[in-house]
Amino acid sequence: MIRIGILGYGNLGRGIECAIKHTKDMKLVAVFTRRDPSTVKILTSDAKVENIENVLEYKDDIDVMILCGGSATDLPKQTPEYAKYFNVVDSFDTHANIPEHFEKVDDAAKASHHFGLISAGWDPGMFSLNRVYANAVLPTGADYTFWGKGVSQGHSDAIRRIEGVVDARQYTVPVEAALEAVRSGSNPELTTRQKHTRECYVVAKEGADKARIENEINTMPNYFADYDTTVHFISMEEMKKNHSKLPHGGFVIRTGKTGWDNENNHVIEYSLKLDSNPEFTASVIVAYSRAVYRMRKEGKIGAHTVFDVPPAYLLDMSAEEMRAHLL
Amino acid sequence: MIRIGILGYGNLGRGIECAIKHTKDMKLVAVFTRRDPSTVKILTSDAKVENIENVLEYKDDIDVMILCGGSATDLPKQTPEYAKYFNVVDSFDTHANIPEHFEKVDDAAKASHHFGLISAGWDPGMFSLNRVYANAVLPTGADYTFWGKGVSQGHSDAIRRIEGVVDARQYTVPVEAALEAVRSGSNPELTTRQKHTRECYVVAKEGADKARIENEINTMPNYFADYDTTVHFISMEEMKKNHSKLPHGGFVIRTGKTGWDNENNHVIEYSLKLDSNPEFTASVIVAYSRAVYRMRKEGKIGAHTVFDVPPAYLLDMSAEEMRAHLL
Repeated sequence: MIRIGILGYGNLGRGIECAIKHTKDMKLVAVFTRRDPSTVKILTSDAKVENIENVLEYKDDIDVMILCGGSATDLPKQTPEYAKYFNVVDSFDTHANIPEHFEKVDDAAKASHHFGLISAGWDPGMFSLNRVYANAVLPTGADYTFWGKGVSQGHSDAIRRIEGVVDARQYTVPVEAALEAVRSGSNPELTTRQKHTRECYVVAKEGADKARIENEINTMPNYFADYDTTVHFISMEEMKKNHSKLPHGGFVIRTGKTGWDNENNHVIEYSLKLDSNPEFTASVIVAYSRAVYRMRKEGKIGAHTVFDVPPAYLLDMSAEEMRAHLL
Repeated sequence: MIRIGILGYGNLGRGIECAIKHTKDMKLVAVFTRRDPSTVKILTSDAKVENIENVLEYKDDIDVMILCGGSATDLPKQTPEYAKYFNVVDSFDTHANIPEHFEKVDDAAKASHHFGLISAGWDPGMFSLNRVYANAVLPTGADYTFWGKGVSQGHSDAIRRIEGVVDARQYTVPVEAALEAVRSGSNPELTTRQKHTRECYVVAKEGADKARIENEINTMPNYFADYDTTVHFISMEEMKKNHSKLPHGGFVIRTGKTGWDNENNHVIEYSLKLDSNPEFTASVIVAYSRAVYRMRKEGKIGAHTVFDVPPAYLLDMSAEEMRAHLL
């Protein structure tokens, strides 16, 4: 059994716990939290809840530590720090800072002879893999990524910070006409506005100036100003009833050409339609935790990404079975 | 430069030649043929055409030999045979015989310290990879593969063998309603007839009994009897004008559940829409030839499949670049 630790018990940590339940080769040893452990109730009856301060006591009892903090402030510190003591996996998703994060984790993991896998999830993660495979197969071509329909937590939070807003949920929606243009192989140049729209559901304080809130959303730089945005004011009851889940998904499409004179067109499309963004992300991370365990056993150390992992390492299945049934 | 040999110069061999032209790190050294080399014209001006009998003279001049024969009779002999002298790649696609083929190639390649990669292409190949990734991420779920719309050469050949048929082209077409049922997550059990239809375009000899030909097609066991089949009789001119290409494609879909009590649904879908089946297959093989070269350089020998290859090995790009731009 591969012994797993979870560090951080929010939506992602709970998703990891659920995914481990459905494996046959993994066991959750403990959840580590910054909160008072007595206030944290987990689902796995035979796993422990510990304060994060006691994590080093588990140095020899955990094969892979899964870091479930956020990419903004937690993971940039946590992943290099815990790579000193554990094999680690994270879902660091600030694309622009991945090279720097990789270097830090690589230094720490190499020094301590641990294995670190960063940026597992679906984007980065499964989407990245599809970009690599499609670029390898169709070197002459163009990549497109669309997100949604799904809840963007960053955009929802941005709305919640507006004066007079009690709660908010923002859906990113890919524009069907843009998807069709890409699939046609016409290789369109698409602006931000042409690719996605943003749909916002907002619960306002009683008496709040809705026109001002709507205007503040529509004109918010980076988040909404470059998009066609729709704002719906709803009641707290409707928010709870219809917008309590965290669905997401998206599309990675590469169109490309082959032939002596590039005379033939091809479309490779990968898409996800997810009821629960955190649970799917967690499922990817758990599969990669299996690979971390196996690659470390082979003697590999340092930082790695999904690009470095042979697909066979992800499955709890023998190579013979895989060749017979999945090839 | 990775030095490539092509053994067999049909549609696939020509596709390989085209794909190599569009790489920056590979060079075609020679094409080997069973025909009289003086009768074979290739596209690459600085590559040689040699009779297959002279192949061993190139033992030290070729890094990867790409075997472009058929899976029925060529590859079961050729891949183990040439693995004695070269690192080899093939696109062996008789799914049921893959385990046996793997063993033979593994024995030959290990004995001679070569690296063999079998069954590269899109199915087996890219479709297989997607089955593995999707199974790893969603262990609780169901797999579906649909093919088409595209030309099945085996089915076209079967029609051509009917008395009175001059030429024929058979398209395999996925049933849209079945695709939708799968995408809905309803986990349908689908019969052969419910998944695909077969469309046949047939040029008959003048005076041939078309009703008999149509009946022979419709009732042909394994090939057509289990499908809803449509037969269109057309002229040779129409055949040449509208049915000379070899398009293909298909869909790999996995639907699965996550959550403590499997309460959330997810759909992972991968699809291909290809103008040229042999050129796309060739493009996959060429990407995997790069991996073969690299893995052999690392000291790895024996038979492998796409499941064993880290995605990063497929691209002519540094790991840093890949992390910065594709992750």
